[in-house]
This record gives sequence, structure tokens and C-alpha cells, in this order.
Amino acid sequence: MTYTVAVSGASGYAGGEILRLLAGHPDIEIRTVTAHSNAGQPLIQHQPHLRSLAHLTLQDTTPEVLAGHDIVFLALPHGQSGQYTDALGDVPLVIDAGADHRLTSSASWDAFYGGHFHEPWAYGVPELITGDGKQREHLRTAKRIAAPGCNASTVSLSLAPGVAAGVIDASDIVSVLAVGPSGAGKSLKPHLLGSELLGTANPYAVGGTHRHIPEIQQALLAAGADDVRISFTPVLVPMARGILATSTARITPGVTDEQIRAAWEDAYGDETFVQLLPAGAFPRTADVLGANTALIGLAIDRAAGRVTVVTAVDNLVKGTAGAAIQSMNLALGLPEDRALTVNGVAP
Amino acid sequence: MTYTVAVSGASGYAGGEILRLLAGHPDIEIRTVTAHSNAGQPLIQHQPHLRSLAHLTLQDTTPEVLAGHDIVFLALPHGQSGQYTDALGDVPLVIDAGADHRLTSSASWDAFYGGHFHEPWAYGVPELITGDGKQREHLRTAKRIAAPGCNASTVSLSLAPGVAAGVIDASDIVSVLAVGPSGAGKSLKPHLLGSELLGTANPYAVGGTHRHIPEIQQALLAAGADDVRISFTPVLVPMARGILATSTARITPGVTDEQIRAAWEDAYGDETFVQLLPAGAFPRTADVLGANTALIGLAIDRAAGRVTVVTAVDNLVKGTAGAAIQSMNLALGLPEDRALTVNGVAP
Amino acid sequence: MTYTVAVSGASGYAGGEILRLLAGHPDIEIRTVTAHSNAGQPLIQHQPHLRSLAHLTLQDTTPEVLAGHDIVFLALPHGQSGQYTDALGDVPLVIDAGADHRLTSSASWDAFYGGHFHEPWAYGVPELITGDGKQREHLRTAKRIAAPGCNASTVSLSLAPGVAAGVIDASDIVSVLAVGPSGAGKSLKPHLLGSELLGTANPYAVGGTHRHIPEIQQALLAAGADDVRISFTPVLVPMARGILATSTARITPGVTDEQIRAAWEDAYGDETFVQLLPAGAFPRTADVLGANTALIGLAIDRAAGRVTVVTAVDNLVKGTAGAAIQSMNLALGLPEDRALTVNGVAP
Amino acid sequence: MTYTVAVSGASGYAGGEILRLLAGHPDIEIRTVTAHSNAGQPLIQHQPHLRSLAHLTLQDTTPEVLAGHDIVFLALPHGQSGQYTDALGDVPLVIDAGADHRLTSSASWDAFYGGHFHEPWAYGVPELITGDGKQREHLRTAKRIAAPGCNASTVSLSLAPGVAAGVIDASDIVSVLAVGPSGAGKSLKPHLLGSELLGTANPYAVGGTHRHIPEIQQALLAAGADDVRISFTPVLVPMARGILATSTARITPGVTDEQIRAAWEDAYGDETFVQLLPAGAFPRTADVLGANTALIGLAIDRAAGRVTVVTAVDNLVKGTAGAAIQSMNLALGLPEDRALTVNGVAP
Repeated sequence: MTYTVAVSGASGYAGGEILRLLAGHPDIEIRTVTAHSNAGQPLIQHQPHLRSLAHLTLQDTTPEVLAGHDIVFLALPHGQSGQYTDALGDVPLVIDAGADHRLTSSASWDAFYGGHFHEPWAYGVPELITGDGKQREHLRTAKRIAAPGCNASTVSLSLAPGVAAGVIDASDIVSVLAVGPSGAGKSLKPHLLGSELLGTANPYAVGGTHRHIPEIQQALLAAGADDVRISFTPVLVPMARGILATSTARITPGVTDEQIRAAWEDAYGDETFVQLLPAGAFPRTADVLGANTALIGLAIDRAAGRVTVVTAVDNLVKGTAGAAIQSMNLALGLPEDRALTVNGVAP
Repeated sequence: MTYTVAVSGASGYAGGEILRLLAGHPDIEIRTVTAHSNAGQPLIQHQPHLRSLAHLTLQDTTPEVLAGHDIVFLALPHGQSGQYTDALGDVPLVIDAGADHRLTSSASWDAFYGGHFHEPWAYGVPELITGDGKQREHLRTAKRIAAPGCNASTVSLSLAPGVAAGVIDASDIVSVLAVGPSGAGKSLKPHLLGSELLGTANPYAVGGTHRHIPEIQQALLAAGADDVRISFTPVLVPMARGILATSTARITPGVTDEQIRAAWEDAYGDETFVQLLPAGAFPRTADVLGANTALIGLAIDRAAGRVTVVTAVDNLVKGTAGAAIQSMNLALGLPEDRALTVNGVAP
Repeated sequence: MTYTVAVSGASGYAGGEILRLLAGHPDIEIRTVTAHSNAGQPLIQHQPHLRSLAHLTLQDTTPEVLAGHDIVFLALPHGQSGQYTDALGDVPLVIDAGADHRLTSSASWDAFYGGHFHEPWAYGVPELITGDGKQREHLRTAKRIAAPGCNASTVSLSLAPGVAAGVIDASDIVSVLAVGPSGAGKSLKPHLLGSELLGTANPYAVGGTHRHIPEIQQALLAAGADDVRISFTPVLVPMARGILATSTARITPGVTDEQIRAAWEDAYGDETFVQLLPAGAFPRTADVLGANTALIGLAIDRAAGRVTVVTAVDNLVKGTAGAAIQSMNLALGLPEDRALTVNGVAP
Repeated sequence: MTYTVAVSGASGYAGGEILRLLAGHPDIEIRTVTAHSNAGQPLIQHQPHLRSLAHLTLQDTTPEVLAGHDIVFLALPHGQSGQYTDALGDVPLVIDAGADHRLTSSASWDAFYGGHFHEPWAYGVPELITGDGKQREHLRTAKRIAAPGCNASTVSLSLAPGVAAGVIDASDIVSVLAVGPSGAGKSLKPHLLGSELLGTANPYAVGGTHRHIPEIQQALLAAGADDVRISFTPVLVPMARGILATSTARITPGVTDEQIRAAWEDAYGDETFVQLLPAGAFPRTADVLGANTALIGLAIDRAAGRVTVVTAVDNLVKGTAGAAIQSMNLALGLPEDRALTVNGVAP
């Protein structure tokens, strides 16, 4: 069968990437695209790369427009998704690319976001280790899915195997991420101007204020950590897409190099979209551009007493839209990799 | 008086930057420029931006050619500077931009470089805190100066105040650096091609193998640390120049936020070229492009239990050539800031 | 049926892109990949983004290794393809991504390339207007195909409709192209280093020396021009991929704006991969990144007396590998768009 | 003596670059900086690279605040400078970095800008050939100066020597420019976002609509052309600064290569900031980054019947702020090159 889909926030970056992937999905009919201020305009005016969707016109984002589809994607600023929840009660599958349904702790929501707290939905990172297996199992039966924060899922996937296996200590993690600006959306802010980004590296949300921190904590607690403390620093660098996350954690006393490496091998050895590179190899973001792949390089630094995990993802694919589609495939009972690619577009 | 200068390695990036700065120095006459394989060619062919030096021709790098100047700059691959030491015995001031004379420990040299160990020279980072004041004092009387490694001096300047003041713990440092490829020199290696660097972030020397690690350890031990252990990961990002170093260390139990911040304020409050930004502000590499300035942003992350220091430098200026000229000015008794700029070229 | 394929030059950029596209082609089995100096090494070491092909090992590029496949792709430096022609006589379909079989004029070959002249093969630009229709028809029956030069096909597709319709004058064309360095291949040349390309625009082959000039002349003569003269200037800009070609030609006296626009509309109105944008719209290279699409914007500048055509392509896809696969599909009788995408990867 | 200066528009890119250059000028005291919406804030918040000016606070841009200085720089959007003209009647020297006082033709102003036409001021391109010498002479006695449009002065300097010498035909010029986004100012427009600019080339104002066209026509008419027609296409490329202008014009029948080259050699042989490169050499924008230099490469393409001139400038220096300072130096009787550099910051 073919499923009808509506995508809200279709003039933004997350919405555009959801559409790019859905346009190549044989089981999907993109019936409706919506926006706020751009409603009434042709989609192609805002997404000039989506040539195959040039016939679509942006409609207004209202519950009425979104209802009546088999699947609805919400790609809205955080705080906005929640208002559609009730109105979309009859929609069989709703996937939120925003933050509103990610956190299980209302205290964390209050501390990092604020405003109305919404119930958590199934978290859209299939490969993530949880206490009782992997997140994939929860997604197979989900009707409501929260796609992850791009930085959060990248760090969580980086470290969850070691945490679950007990070979690293989650109480003193340090993560520094080189990130492209598309993760910040199509916002008209001075620091996101090209002149401000070209040729420079620019840190932001330094010192424990980034909103993805509680999401990482939640994921690593689910993976088995007792206590998760993380020094988290994202740095904008001059590439449109991509996250290269360098994460380190102290090695648990007594574990061997083989035990450490085995933790990640066991976790991801059978995965298509999360791959551990051979010892000594580390990924570049270019290797996963446009792909749904997270590539992980692992170093054991005994002099520093730390494991260093370097993970590359495309923030708009594995970090957002690809995670959403992969989760959708699971929820629909389709092959998990449908419409998603493993190979990046490089150079 | 005017000092005559010879610059070896003049067709490379470090040599070119030394020449760019010297070309604006009123007390210097650039008399000789040398190279290896490019000897005999016009300098302008290899440094097309140095229009005011278009009259110079590259000579062969031999002891005879370099001797007979008041000052000699060696901008050669590591392992090569040492062979000129004896032959340049009569030259009043020799400044090595390479690694050969940086390390005091032959064991560290063997572990990270290998080959013949050379005696350490005065380390060209004037603002660096040492046990008995600042490195500046040693440079005032120096005849032989080792310019620093760009990543090393950036991290050392980032953390030395906190180490010296005892407010952070040097035994579990994590540094991740976004760096431009010019730090790797004009080497014809596949991973340094533009196609491999544009649009991507690329880690290298992951897991404790980077040669600047012992240099950082040496500097922080001199600043008063008992034990220095560092997880160090550089990441190539698509900007020709610049280092943005994010360094974290655990906060010493019991110290207050005021004590922490005071450590950096006291260390750099009177410095021209190393400046602490106000609380909440963090630097971009664009802010120091072409300038001899290190800008430092400091965050105190109590949830993570760590101080985060983000420092921006231009790797070719404050990281290499600017450090060399600043040290030269000190050794010659000239104003320390001569021919050096504080303001960056941005956007 | 499934066709077996060998790809030579598989460690380079053109070869890598052919493999990326073939990896998603349901009718193709990639059996053999070859290289010269890298023979014996895993393909993944040189193409780390091609995760689905991690099992392949580079073999030596010899006629014996290449023979015995249904299809052979030659992605070799110009002057090298020719030596395999005889040895591959039994291979049903050979596609050369190099220049050896593109030119019909041995005089042009001598003037711009030199060395042995090889017979021309069917030119792999299906949408190109020729005197008797489109190049597509020739490809349907081809056994030997020459994929185009990326700059050449971009300019030829830009102007052929106007030339064929007689609305522009081919005797005084000016084309200036912003190009990414991947078009120059994975060559270890100083001007292709990242430090030399980041943050700068760099012209090359200025003044009529670029090797794609005769290829453009040949195509536009085939489209009906009497005389083709072109001022052609490529400019390297800091993006890994992409060509943005700005081409202008004088308007034929007496033609109306409607006639001009109709020339392009008629030529490309039914095409999937070459699309004319609405009046007032112009393409960006990001819009076609990773896609086989050429997007064309057309302006009629009466004050200057010229038509300006701005065309964006991905040099590695529509410019090289996509053209090769599209031509292969035609020669095999498969749907022309198989394994090729229309939508770009943006932002 | 020291001249007191006020700079309006000080939070923008042009204003910031004027300040960067003035900060190194020994005869200037920067007394006042002004802005509109940012008035009341510290300058350093908007120009974090101008560390030496961290003590300055942005005042409101009013005639009263600007009056009472020896020199006033207006770095405002076009249409705004004119309102200050009367109020600044007593200011000895006023330099407008905007367009309001550039054009001599009110018809051109109406066609390309619209709104109130202001009287033309002395045009701030000292090296530009005019009928009676060079523009420099007019600037020596000027009290009111209009700094040039960056694209306009680049193209005018490129072609004026050939036009004045009669070796090229100005009636069919084609110019295509690779430009960085800083030329568009710090405007919050979607197409200027980093995500939209990184990794892509993006044409704008295609087909004869760019506002710098009449400024080029005016300059080349002043250089001696009878008729100036120009096809002008700027292309945004991923570099913060820089213009690489490729301009071509048909060769006048009968002139020799020597005559052509002599036109440029004679025009610029004695100039410091406009330099003709040797035959076969062409400039990169990196070669002039941060410098006041225009580098010109010249090719004579007999096959195309055209001269190709490739010129690199830093749009914010030689294109705007450097031109303003150079003109100011002339008007003040100071050495023309004071506070300006010839050498670029590369790589």
C-alpha cells in the first residue's frame, strides 16, 4: 500500500530533508506540505533542490490541513508541536522532528527549554542500546515518534555501548562537536550569516547550557549509567552539514583493550547505519554526507586514561530526517533501510 | 639600527608568514630568503601575496648562505634545524620555528619525534606562566629561541593560569581543537587536498599520538602542575588558518567561581596579545585572523565539574610566526608589539 | 539480467562517483575495481564514503583484469584509455570517463592534448541537440561511449538550444565558470591543497588554453553553429563539487524575447535531467549536489545585447559519472534515469 | 597633527573595516562611532575582532553626534547618506562609503536606485584613468569623497587602461565576478545565511540589473570610451571576502599584443596598490586579503578575439574601506599608503 503523508515546516531545513528522503520512498505519497509565513507559495521557491516536488504548494500549518493523512511529520520549532497533538489524534502515525516529545523528565524540560511539558514519545534512534535491548523494538509498535536531537543522538550512539558494557565511566564525559550551521535551522540570526561563518570556528552554548545535554543524559541512563555528567561544547565550523563529535570518557579500571573494543563491536556489528571503523581509522563528515550512516572511530588512550570516540553523522539525515524515516519504516513494518543510503556523497 | 635577516624555508607557510610580518617591521632588513627544492626561483612565485618582496630570489638553504646575518629564522621540517646549529654559531640571534629545540626531555623527543635530540632553546611564548614569573623574562636575554608548536602553545596558554593558581586539575585534561590545514604546512599529502577538506571535518592523530602533547605537558609542569595527562584531539576544519581550542579540566574541590576567574584575570590582565573575554563571551578564529592575539573565553560548568576554556589563535601568527617576531622583539630590546597587530581581519 | 562491471581508476574521484552511483543500481554487479599505484589495497581506504563496497580490493589496471565483464568503465588520466581499446574488444560496452575518445578532430586533439589520437566514441550527453535530433539517439545503439568533460558539457548544454534555434551568435561566446577542485582529480599539486583553495577564488587556464574548449566547439557546431569562438575562464572556488557556468552570447538581431526563451523551453521541456528555470530564477550548485540534474537560468539582457545563461551541475555527476551511467542506461535499454536522482542534497 | 574622526554605520562590515584600518593610522584619533539600532552597545559586541577599540560605545547616528569632527565617514545603506550632507556642512572632510554620491547621472540613479538624487562627490579610486590624468588629482583637493562600489571599481580598474589606450572595445564587455558575501553587508536575508552559502556558488542580479553597472559605465566613459555596454554577473562563492573579476572585451582590430600589454603597464607601472602581474600569471583573492591591493592578470586570447582581465581585490579594503582611507590620505596631504598594506594575508 501507499501511505499518504503531510510534512509541516516544509520550508525549513529539517522539513526539506524529510521531503528529500520521502521523495525517493516507493511506499509514500507526499500529499501535503505546510508552512507558516510562507504558506501559499510554491515549495520549490524555498527548496529549490527538490525539483521532483516542484508541483507542490505550501499550505498553512493547521490541525485541519494536517489531519486526514496516514502519517504526519512535524518539523516545527520546539514548543509548537504539542499544540497539534490532540487534533492529530486520529492520524495513525505522527513523527515529531522537534524537541517537544523527547524528554522523559519534566524537570529537565523546565531547566533547558521551559514552557509546557509534553509526554515523551518513542525515541527515534533505533540502534541505541537500552536496558532491555535496543530502541528499535520500541519503534516497531510506536504510533508517536520523537526524532532525536542531532547532537544528542550522535553523542549517545558514540558512548552507549561503552556505558552499557561498563567499560567507561559516564560521570565525567567530555564532548566537543564540530557542527555545520544547518542544525540551527533557517533562522535569520546575525551569527548564522555566511560572512560570520566562512573561514572561522565559532563556539556556542559553552559551559553546560546546550539543550541536548539532558537528552544525552537520558539516553545514557537508559543504557545503564548510574550518573551522567558531561562537558558539552559545540563549535560551528564552515560546512553546511555534518557533525563530528569527539567524545571521551575515562576507562573503567581493570578493563582490557579487547573488552573496550568488543563493547562497540558487539553493539554495532550487525547494524547497517551505525558502523565501527577498524582500529586506527576515524571518520570524516564528508563520508556520511547525505547518508543515514553514523561512522564511529574508537581510540584507547592509556596515557590519558580515556577512550576517545569520534563519530561522524549528517545532522540532517541520521541526526534528524533519516532517523525519522528509519523510525517510520520500523513503525510501518517496512524494511528499515528503505529510501535511506549508506554511502556518503564525497568528496 | 637595522638588523639583517635571513629566513629559511621561505617558500612554505611558516616562512611566508614570518616574511609577511617582517616586511612591516621598521627595524628589519630582509636580506636573504632560502629554500630547498625551490632554490633559484623568485620568492613571489611561491608567496604571491608578498608583493613588497617580489624582488627577492630564493637561495639554497646552506649554512654559508644563512651565516653572516644578525638574525636567522629557521622554518624547516623538524629534524632539519639541528644541522645548522653549529654552523650558525656566530649569528647573534637564531629563531627556530620547528620542533627541534622545544623539548627539554630527550625521552619525550624519542617517544614522539625520534632521531637526534637537540638542546632546548628559550621557548617563544612570552605570556606563559612559569614557576618564577613568565616566559617573557627568559626571552629578553635569549640568543637562541624555539618558537612554539601552534596547538601546544594555544592549549598551554589556555590552561596555565588555572594550573599555576591551583584551581584546576592538570591530571585529566581534555582538549579538542578545530584547526585549519595551514598548520600542516605546504605538504603534498592526499588528505590535505582541497577536495578532501572542503565541507568536512576530519580528525587526525587521535588517541594520544600528536607531537604537541609533550610540549603541553612540559609547559604545564613548568606552570606548577604535578602531573599532566591530556586527551588531545585535533580536527581539521575548512578554514585555511586558525585554531579554536576547547580545553576542559576538573575544578579543584573547594575553589569558588571568583577564584577561578581571578586566576586568568591575574595572569593576562596586563597582556596585549593574550586577552580574557568577559564572562559569557567566547572567541571565534576570525576575530584573530592575521593578528598576534590569543582570545580566551572561560566557562565554569559546575554540573560537569569542569572549567571549559575556549581559545582562538591564528596558527600562523600567534601560533608560529607572530610568536617568533614577538620573541625576537624581546631579545632585541625592541617594543614587544612591534610589527604585530592586535586586531583581526574579519569578517 | 544483472550486468557485471569493472571500474578502473577506482581510487580517484571520477571512479569513486561511478561506483557510488552503480552501488545503487539494481541491474549492476560491481565485480572488479582497479587502480595503479594503489592496487592491492582495500577500496574503502581510498573511498571511505563507499561503505557498501567495503569488501572490494583494488586490483591492478590491466587489460586482462578488465576483460570478461559486461561493462567496463575507464576513469583514467587522458592518454591512458586508448591503450585498453584493443584489449577490450570483446567487452560489450566500454565507457570512457577520460578525454581520449571525445574529440572528432585530430587537429584539435593535437592542439589541446597531444599524443596519439583515438577515434571518437558516442558522446555521452543525451540531451544535447545535434543536427538530427538529440545525442540520446546515438547512445541507444552505442557500444563505446565517451563521457563528457564536465565544463564542456555544462557550457554546451547551456547554449546549444539557442544556437540550434538561431537566436544567439556562437561566434563570440564568453563563459566564466566557478568550479570546485574535484574536477581536477585527486592530483597532488600545490595549487589544489586545501590551504590554497579555502577562502579564495583562483583562475586557471585563462586565455584560451583550457582543454574543454574544442569539445564545446565541436558540440555547438553539431548543434548548427557556423563558427564557434569562445572566451573561456574557469575559476576554482571553495566548494568540493559543482560547476556554475555563466555563459553569454550576443542576441541575433530581430529575434524576440519569446523566441529566445522558446528555444530553451522547446529543447528541454520534456527532459528530466536538464531543466530550464522560470524567468527570473537562477540556480545554485547546491541545488544539484549529488544529483544528475543540470539547472538552467536564462536572462535576456537587451542593454548588453546578450543572452546570459547560468547553469549549475555537479561536476562529478551530470558532469562525469552521472552522464556515464545515464548513457549506460540508454545503451542497455534500461530506463534512462535508473540509479540517478533529480533532487540535490541541500543545504 | 591628529585628525578626529567619526564613523557611522560602525556596527556593519564597511564601518568595521574603516575602523580596522584607522586603528593603525598614526594621524587619526577615532573619537566617535555610531549606529542605528545598536546604539548604546559596546562596539566590541558587534566587531569582536577590533580589540584595540574595545573601549568605544556606539552612539546614535545623528547629525549632531557626527558634526564637530575633522573627518566623518558615512557607512550607511544607500539613500541614507544624503540626509546628513547639509548638517555636516562644517565638517572639513566627509567620506561616504555608500552609493549616494557616486553617480553623475540622475537618470542612472533613477533607473538603478531610485529616490532622491544627490550631487556627485569626488570618486575615491585614485588610480583610475580619466581623460585628464588620474582620479588621484581630483582627490587631492576634495572635501567630499564618494568611496566606490566594490564590484564597480574592480571592473573599472580592470578595463580602463585598455579603454583609454583604445586597444579594446568597451561596447561589448562581459564581466563575471566571484564575490564573497561581506559585500552585501550584515543583512539578515535568507540567501546570505551560512547554510545557503557554504559549498555552493550562487548568482544574483543576473541580466543587467546590478546597481554597479552605471558606475562602471561612468568610469569607462571618463576613461575615454564612446559607448559602454556590459554584461555583468556576480556570483556569490564561499569566501567571506574577496572579488575575483573576470572581464573580457574585444580587441581593437590591428593592435598588437605589445600595444595591448603596454596599455596596462603604462597605466599601473608606477602604482603601489594596482599591480599588473607578469604575462601568464593571474591573481587569487587570497593574495590580497586584508590588503589595499588590486592584482591584475592579463591574457590576450586571439582565438576568441578578446582580452581577458582577471582582477583580485579585497572587497572590504580596496573595494571600500581601503579606497576610503587612501582617498582620505590624499585629501589630507598625507602619504597615500599610510595605514594600508600591500601584502595580503595568505594562505
